Amino acid sequence: MSKKVVFIVMSCLAVLALALGVMAWADGNANQVDYPEGYRQWAHVKSMVLQAGHPFYDTVGGIHHIYANTKALAAMKAGKPHPDGAVIVFDLLEAKSENNAIAEGSRKVVNVMQKNSKKFAATGGWGFEGFKGDTKERVVMDAKSACFDCHAGRKAQDYVFSTYRQ
Amino acid sequence: MSKKVVFIVMSCLAVLALALGVMAWADGNANQVDYPEGYRQWAHVKSMVLQAGHPFYDTVGGIHHIYANTKALAAMKAGKPHPDGAVIVFDLLEAKSENNAIAEGSRKVVNVMQKNSKKFAATGGWGFEGFKGDTKERVVMDAKSACFDCHAGRKAQDYVFSTYRQ
Repeated sequence: MSKKVVFIVMSCLAVLALALGVMAWADGNANQVDYPEGYRQWAHVKSMVLQAGHPFYDTVGGIHHIYANTKALAAMKAGKPHPDGAVIVFDLLEAKSENNAIAEGSRKVVNVMQKNSKKFAATGGWGFEGFKGDTKERVVMDAKSACFDCHAGRKAQDYVFSTYRQ
Repeated sequence: MSKKVVFIVMSCLAVLALALGVMAWADGNANQVDYPEGYRQWAHVKSMVLQAGHPFYDTVGGIHHIYANTKALAAMKAGKPHPDGAVIVFDLLEAKSENNAIAEGSRKVVNVMQKNSKKFAATGGWGFEGFKGDTKERVVMDAKSACFDCHAGRKAQDYVFSTYRQ
C-alpha cells in the first residue's frame, strides 16, 4: 500500500475510535445520576445525627437532612412506590458539638437517589450518587456495593429508608 | 318607667355589651399570629440540637428546624429586612439519643414569627406565638417577655437569629 492509502486508513480508524469513545462517554453520562439542582428548597423530610460509635459513622457520620422532590414527596406521603423522576437527597453536614449544642458545620457530601426504572434496573430502579461537599465532583465508584447493597434490605419500602413525618 | 320600657332598655344594653365583646374579641384575634399552614413544605433554613446543660434547654431543648416562607426566604438570602407577610417557623421536636444517634421524637412546639409592622409595632414589627405539639393551642402568654426581649438583641438583623446557609 502506498503511504497515502495507509494514511487514509489510519485516519479513518482514528476517527472511528474517537467516535466510539464519544459514544461510550455519552452513554456513561446517560446513566449518571443528575446533580439535584435546587434541592435545598425541596421539602425537608426528616433529619438525624450520627455520632462517633455509630456503625455508619465512618461513611455518613454528622448531621443529615433528607429532602424530597415533588414526585418523591407525593410517593412518600401516599406510602406508594416512587415513580420515575422521583429524587431523594441525603444532605450530610459536619456536626459541630460545643457548649451542649450540636450545630451544622461544612457540607460533607450530597448523596442522591434518582428513580429511573430502565436506566437503573440493576439497582432496584434507583441510581445512586454522591457529590463531594459543595462541589459536583462525583464520589460513588460502585453504586451497588457503596449504596444499593444496604438499601436492598428495604425492598418492601421501594429501597428507601426515610418515611415522611408530619 | 313601665316594665316594658325597662325591658327594652335592658335588652338594648345587653345587645350593645355583646357587640362590644365581639368587637374586642375580633380585635384580639386580629393581633394574633396565624398558624403557619403548610410550613413543613416551606424552605428548610437550618437545624440545631440543644442538649441538657445548654442555657436555653429548658425552653427550647431538643432538635429544631427553621423554615421560612417565600417572603422570609427571599429576605434572608438578600440579607435585607423582612417585608410584611414574612413568616419564620422554629419547629421543635424531642431529640431521642440512642446507640450513638440522635433521632427526632415528638413535636414539642411550633414557634412562629410573623412580620406585620403595624400590628406588631410594639415588638419590632414581629408577632410571636407558639403552638403546642401537633395542635393549634397557643402557648405564648406574653410575647414581649417570652420572645421579643431575647430577639431584641438581634435588632441589626431585623430581630432574626437564623441566617440562610447554602
